[in-house]
Amino acid sequence: MENFTSQEDTICALATPTGGALGIIRVSGYQAFPIVSSICSLCCDTIAANTTRYTRIRTPKGDTLDEVLVSVFRAPHSYTGENSIEISFHGSPYIAQQLLSLLIQQGCRQANPGEFTQRAFLNGKMDLSQAEAVADLIASTNRATHHLAINQLRGGISSELTTLRDQLLHLTSLLELELDFSDHEDLEFADRSKIQALAEAIEQRIDRLMQSFQAGQAIKQGVPVAIVGKTNVGKSTLLNRLLKEERAIVSDIHGTTRDTIEDCIDIHGVTFRFIDTAGLRKTDDTIERIGIERTYNAIQRARIILWVTDGSPSQTEMNEMTKLSEGKELLIVRNKVDLQPNHSESDSCIPISAQEGTGLSLLEERIYHAAHIPKIAEDSIVVTNARHYQSLLSAHESLQRVLVGLSDSLSADLLAEDLRLVLDHLADITGGQITPQETLETIFREFCVGK
Amino acid sequence: MENFTSQEDTICALATPTGGALGIIRVSGYQAFPIVSSICSLCCDTIAANTTRYTRIRTPKGDTLDEVLVSVFRAPHSYTGENSIEISFHGSPYIAQQLLSLLIQQGCRQANPGEFTQRAFLNGKMDLSQAEAVADLIASTNRATHHLAINQLRGGISSELTTLRDQLLHLTSLLELELDFSDHEDLEFADRSKIQALAEAIEQRIDRLMQSFQAGQAIKQGVPVAIVGKTNVGKSTLLNRLLKEERAIVSDIHGTTRDTIEDCIDIHGVTFRFIDTAGLRKTDDTIERIGIERTYNAIQRARIILWVTDGSPSQTEMNEMTKLSEGKELLIVRNKVDLQPNHSESDSCIPISAQEGTGLSLLEERIYHAAHIPKIAEDSIVVTNARHYQSLLSAHESLQRVLVGLSDSLSADLLAEDLRLVLDHLADITGGQITPQETLETIFREFCVGK
Repeated sequence: MENFTSQEDTICALATPTGGALGIIRVSGYQAFPIVSSICSLCCDTIAANTTRYTRIRTPKGDTLDEVLVSVFRAPHSYTGENSIEISFHGSPYIAQQLLSLLIQQGCRQANPGEFTQRAFLNGKMDLSQAEAVADLIASTNRATHHLAINQLRGGISSELTTLRDQLLHLTSLLELELDFSDHEDLEFADRSKIQALAEAIEQRIDRLMQSFQAGQAIKQGVPVAIVGKTNVGKSTLLNRLLKEERAIVSDIHGTTRDTIEDCIDIHGVTFRFIDTAGLRKTDDTIERIGIERTYNAIQRARIILWVTDGSPSQTEMNEMTKLSEGKELLIVRNKVDLQPNHSESDSCIPISAQEGTGLSLLEERIYHAAHIPKIAEDSIVVTNARHYQSLLSAHESLQRVLVGLSDSLSADLLAEDLRLVLDHLADITGGQITPQETLETIFREFCVGK
Repeated sequence: MENFTSQEDTICALATPTGGALGIIRVSGYQAFPIVSSICSLCCDTIAANTTRYTRIRTPKGDTLDEVLVSVFRAPHSYTGENSIEISFHGSPYIAQQLLSLLIQQGCRQANPGEFTQRAFLNGKMDLSQAEAVADLIASTNRATHHLAINQLRGGISSELTTLRDQLLHLTSLLELELDFSDHEDLEFADRSKIQALAEAIEQRIDRLMQSFQAGQAIKQGVPVAIVGKTNVGKSTLLNRLLKEERAIVSDIHGTTRDTIEDCIDIHGVTFRFIDTAGLRKTDDTIERIGIERTYNAIQRARIILWVTDGSPSQTEMNEMTKLSEGKELLIVRNKVDLQPNHSESDSCIPISAQEGTGLSLLEERIYHAAHIPKIAEDSIVVTNARHYQSLLSAHESLQRVLVGLSDSLSADLLAEDLRLVLDHLADITGGQITPQETLETIFREFCVGK
């Protein structure tokens, strides 16, 4: 890893959006101390690690740019593992720009997205799955996504993989033992059944991780829900009702832009993304192309269809809707029940009044259950990352070959090759072996700058 | 100031917008250390001042909310002058919300806008004009606004007011001397001329500060420029040309939203805000009401009118435009000169080609000069704050009465009363005397939360 040339640069980046009271600029690299010293009145080299000092940032002309706090971190006890400095300044966009310019003039390079975390990985401060968890943690907007990210950051997946690795190594050693005693034919049978059992246990473990990916994806990406129905059945009122409380909760938080939450609600910590449709036309003959396209798109993207009606749907309507929602979960919501006091309850309809706000808790429960989010125990490991899933898939394939080989009584040296592949694929997840530069670039490209 | 009850609360606030790599939450007050200690694994009381420590934030259930850095500042050596803590967390909106909730559960109160700076003022860390400069500094988006704010923060106005105060106290002492020697009639004449000269010098000084307010306002608020002209003369192309480079500069800065700069450009560090109009109709008779209203509004709000034409304006047009722009600066821009190779140059027209990008530097120079921004020396004091201007105005009025009194040979004790008023009004600016709660609330209401 020493020939990773970019690590020789000292990097800087804005780590906060501007527009708040404070802004933070991070500097990391072997020149961090002299570079920051050159633009303020401190000698960072002589400042104790993990201390914060007040200073003035000066331009080359001698003007004061800002009065700032400088926090000094010394290698290897910093986020990146390098000498690092965080400059806390008055959160003006002008100051941010000027301060970055000054640092760059003095020899810093503007950091690439995720480059601080990438350095932390390359310097052994965290493994790759933990590095990826940092990005997930920053992006987390609710309890469920946060829970998954913090578990991964705290090494949840890494420790599960360590267990798997230990079991796989044990398996390998059993096979080696078999090779050593290959003359003694009697021994084989006993070992093979033991090896078989162990391989199956490992397979189940990998399987469980792979299965968790569906839940992980649902939690991370949110579950898409299409609201369909005729015009004037109260789709918008219902959507507003569902969104209302959410909005109240988040509106207090400075910097949460409305559009990211516009059509999302959390139910039991899982995000449901609502896709409003323009109103479904049910004429048998000509349906406007744009209208139907939009609705079909919404239905295609959705995992759950919320069909809002204001009366009992006819059998024809029911058939049509059932056909439309093939492969999806269909929930029929009967709105305006307050205006139909004698409506007949039916198991297939969820009675609500969006206007009065009644029936909404039941509806939320039904939506949540329709998503089929597997129950995740507080401390269970959930795979949320597509890259991890791919590696698990490959590991699983190789392990399958081992299992087939075992039942075909293949020789130990042939099995060992596939076992090695299982280990390699699992190691890809944490970056335990040398990770290709290309993979690293793909991973860290998704980060924000300054992390 | 001790009976300022809100200071007894420990306050917390998000000091950065969420959505970046990092977020900062500030906590300040006498309970800051125990409150933060109760949600992490540190004992903040025993941590040395100005040091940064890594810790985990834990929920009451024992879950890890985040891995954070905690910086400890000890009274009086903190921004607010109180025990303070800054928590640097992974910039997720969920973590921000949960962390604030935890702090509030443990006894913090969500800070009001500007409350940290208000406490800094109340604890004598800065005077009122410096506190106001903090808000200006955070809001600064270019060299000029930044320069004014940082000068004010560094005590520019405060030191000018100290000089004025010393001169006024000297004046007072001269008047007192006159009172002491009031029996000696001969002495009076000599003293009065000296007092008169001194009072006039002070008046000039206050006058200069008041005059700087116009420039200060122009720099702070930006100079409004209306672009008017017939349709198809190239108004939009010109605007895009003028904005283009600016956009390129700022687009690199993370978090600078486009709409704040959409129609602004900086010329020599001063912001010019462009108001595009729908296109001026010059028919003599009926002009659509909305069209004319919009254009008139734009012209009314503008200080400079940029009249874009693509030919030589007729005398009628000229007269009309001169009438419309009464009390404003009118610049006539002749666009598309590249298509009229034989056009006659005239002093009153600025020839440009928005398409080719020629003539734009000259245009910018002319716009800048039309704004009549008084030349401000690098180190001169500029008043940017309307509250300060009001106080200067009141001080100036009282001083006028002193000057009239001096020329009317009023007795010293009568003059002393007005002199006291001059001192009081000037002291209002820095908050040197007890500032009414109402005034403080007005000042700090304009701040962002977290500062």
